[in-house]
Amino acid sequence: MAVLMPKPSAAVLGRRAAIVSALKAIVPGEGVVDAANEMRVFESDGLTAYRQMPLVVVLPETVDQVAAVLRYCHAERIPVVPRGSGTSLSGGALPLEDGVLLVLSRFNRVLDIDFDNRCAVVQPGVTNLGITRAVEHRGFYYAPDPSSQIACSIGGNVAENSGGVHSLKYGLTANNVLGIEFVTIEGEVIRLGGKHLDSEGYDLLGLMTGSEGLLGVVTEVTVRILQAPETARAVLIGFPSSEQAGAAVAAIIAEGIIPGGMEMMDRPAIHAAEDFVHAGYPRDVEALLIVELDGPKAEVDHLLAAVERISHTHGCASAKVSQSDEERAAFWAGRKAAFPAVGRISPDYYCMDGTIPRKELPKVLAGMKDLSVKHGLRVANVFHAGDGNLHPLILYDANKPGELESAEEFGNDILRLCVAVGGVLTGEHGVGVEKRDLMPEMFSDDDLKHQQRVKCAFDSEHLLNPGKVFPLLHRCAELGRMHVHKGQVAFPDLPRF
Amino acid sequence: MAVLMPKPSAAVLGRRAAIVSALKAIVPGEGVVDAANEMRVFESDGLTAYRQMPLVVVLPETVDQVAAVLRYCHAERIPVVPRGSGTSLSGGALPLEDGVLLVLSRFNRVLDIDFDNRCAVVQPGVTNLGITRAVEHRGFYYAPDPSSQIACSIGGNVAENSGGVHSLKYGLTANNVLGIEFVTIEGEVIRLGGKHLDSEGYDLLGLMTGSEGLLGVVTEVTVRILQAPETARAVLIGFPSSEQAGAAVAAIIAEGIIPGGMEMMDRPAIHAAEDFVHAGYPRDVEALLIVELDGPKAEVDHLLAAVERISHTHGCASAKVSQSDEERAAFWAGRKAAFPAVGRISPDYYCMDGTIPRKELPKVLAGMKDLSVKHGLRVANVFHAGDGNLHPLILYDANKPGELESAEEFGNDILRLCVAVGGVLTGEHGVGVEKRDLMPEMFSDDDLKHQQRVKCAFDSEHLLNPGKVFPLLHRCAELGRMHVHKGQVAFPDLPRF
Repeated sequence: MAVLMPKPSAAVLGRRAAIVSALKAIVPGEGVVDAANEMRVFESDGLTAYRQMPLVVVLPETVDQVAAVLRYCHAERIPVVPRGSGTSLSGGALPLEDGVLLVLSRFNRVLDIDFDNRCAVVQPGVTNLGITRAVEHRGFYYAPDPSSQIACSIGGNVAENSGGVHSLKYGLTANNVLGIEFVTIEGEVIRLGGKHLDSEGYDLLGLMTGSEGLLGVVTEVTVRILQAPETARAVLIGFPSSEQAGAAVAAIIAEGIIPGGMEMMDRPAIHAAEDFVHAGYPRDVEALLIVELDGPKAEVDHLLAAVERISHTHGCASAKVSQSDEERAAFWAGRKAAFPAVGRISPDYYCMDGTIPRKELPKVLAGMKDLSVKHGLRVANVFHAGDGNLHPLILYDANKPGELESAEEFGNDILRLCVAVGGVLTGEHGVGVEKRDLMPEMFSDDDLKHQQRVKCAFDSEHLLNPGKVFPLLHRCAELGRMHVHKGQVAFPDLPRF
Repeated sequence: MAVLMPKPSAAVLGRRAAIVSALKAIVPGEGVVDAANEMRVFESDGLTAYRQMPLVVVLPETVDQVAAVLRYCHAERIPVVPRGSGTSLSGGALPLEDGVLLVLSRFNRVLDIDFDNRCAVVQPGVTNLGITRAVEHRGFYYAPDPSSQIACSIGGNVAENSGGVHSLKYGLTANNVLGIEFVTIEGEVIRLGGKHLDSEGYDLLGLMTGSEGLLGVVTEVTVRILQAPETARAVLIGFPSSEQAGAAVAAIIAEGIIPGGMEMMDRPAIHAAEDFVHAGYPRDVEALLIVELDGPKAEVDHLLAAVERISHTHGCASAKVSQSDEERAAFWAGRKAAFPAVGRISPDYYCMDGTIPRKELPKVLAGMKDLSVKHGLRVANVFHAGDGNLHPLILYDANKPGELESAEEFGNDILRLCVAVGGVLTGEHGVGVEKRDLMPEMFSDDDLKHQQRVKCAFDSEHLLNPGKVFPLLHRCAELGRMHVHKGQVAFPDLPRF
């Protein structure tokens, strides 16, 4: 694809053998991968259209090793790309030709489970679902549930501030992480937060969450665990139009009901999912809501009745309540398999991730129909309807000349539409390389410079994950924060941008 | 009190007349207050033991005026202390002798109420309760409720990340602010967040929330508004010991119940409050829990029964459920008046604000009893029990030689105890000047330097609220982020630290 990455440093490329040796001294055994056939698996992440072989792959096992690798790369001016499980949908873990790929998958231990304080301390390579597996014997779980939860790592969740279908009620990663340990590019080990409520000082924990690997490398995560609700039931509600479904969503929220999850799929997504997993979805509707209510049984019964009443008021065609936990899981299985299901009906698809103020949903859906005609491509829609997070899946065929480019343009137009109605470029997938060049659609030059001043506070040489998030990185000294007088500032090496 | 503030700049003090004239040109009319008798009211905030007259007071009315004042102060190297309603309990708005006090009280308009998207856009001088007053005709309210909510401003709430008795269920200010506009010390106007879910880029909104006026001046706030719950009932539960009450709190949370509020008071606080407002509190117990359940009536009835059952299991002496909204308000009136109530039984009191992991409550209560003996001073305890946030009120008499110093030492010992059990120095009152010199008890030198690198990214001259939060501010160039080569960095004026 046509994303421009920073020009690789000839100096770094020329020193590859020495760099590999130095890294092997820091991480002995099988912790350094430098053979091309073994590095191939790390060539891309979940955004598979982008591929790049790294300079070398390092898989450290201890915090000391991480700090030593970063200190070495800082001293030698070698870029570093951190990677968890590599499920990023925005290319956040895309390697650099002249960069060390720092893979945290060997940090896979659960360090402490503290049921009294309702938290768990885990290493960043533990999978999202792995946390729930570690605490479910006592009736607890970890709430944010990306569709990739069986594979994605909690470290990657922190980097991307990942969400899931239950984030409407229980929040994104940022709302469920209590503390982290991370290592700066200079090799300092910093601990933020812990098992307590708010803390003094700037909210660096919040800043690190969603920073996409540009500020530091997370080596430990303390997460909140929740007791599983006494009861959870889901209801499938079919509507003759997306507009009616959208209005029902607004009415449910307006009545003060916060469902555990409230998802919406349009006809193409419904059919693709039903054909794939046979979840029991109705085929004769234009829009489907999956609404889950959880809590004490008395509350769930009361809220289910309210949701059904509101849905009928808004003209629903059908409503089916799950009668068992198995049926509830089946309802969700269709939604969680929507992406691969769409993969079965189209040679390729491109998943977008815009967020809009909830009430703009009808306007954006209508706009998307127009764009579909304009670009000559179909789109299947899957929404986190309750919180306004859209996941349009653009269907295309990479083997047909020009279709990939059309899909990219279509995606960009959708995101511009999201911004135009007061929304933003991403809800949970991150900017990465995918949305990097759209950042000026959203932010003014002052806004972007202010973000980068924070980047400079952590990594003034732009060595951590360069080429991601920011379309242009200013030299830190250019950002107006240095007051140089009767002297001069010069850099030993020119920075990469 | 004995807090060391930065040495005032003789250059600034000597230019006072010129500075006042320049400010009057920017903010005409009655927007500049420079007469000593008129400035007296701004001499301290809620931490009344600390007093300092400012250089001059400015009350701008427009964002352009705020930007112009900040640009002027930046160019002239004049410190600026932002102030909302001045209810800070940590001295966050304490003036500086050589500093402009920038008061936002004229920013008092509600700009937009958007019920569909459940948010309101307000100016920072609007009071916390003023937001609820503006939306309650449609059944909505703003959730975080500091005891000072009738007076404190939403801008100040953002600066301190304020909480209240309902923060257990509904979160602190950080969880309820969707967007802000703020002005940097250089006069740039930056907008963060808005009416949508998550956004791309670093979480500068989270960073600004709780930054205590050291990073910028907030000029607009977008907050989430919630629909008032269908039903809310409170129950007063008396216990023969604080340990039993603490165990009941843990058991309630462990059962998956998140009450709207769960507060605890000890015997001295109960008696002081009951004598003051006649809330109907039992006098014959050692600890009192006030637990509020809210939601649909069916849920509230179910949860009330569960809370009563758990309380009896843990040996409660009495339980009284509110039978009307008036009675519920009375139950809370005692708690919300606890600080002034304690003021009636002691010439002076000193309110601390530590936070601990919930399960350490018995250990900390026992430790506080020992400290009370050691320092020869009584203490009354009011807790946000559900989230581990303690507010010990140390009773002393400022007219007795040495008692103020003993109270300060007692307070410091309590905070050290909080940190020792894995807690932190503040839950919601901020660091300000009060807890500034205790920061090294909590943070390593690396931690503090990393915080200050962020400060430098926003305000490299340390002009915004200097002397607050950090015991020592390093010069930005000392923090190791500048790589100077064949040249020299020098500052036109030496920074203040």
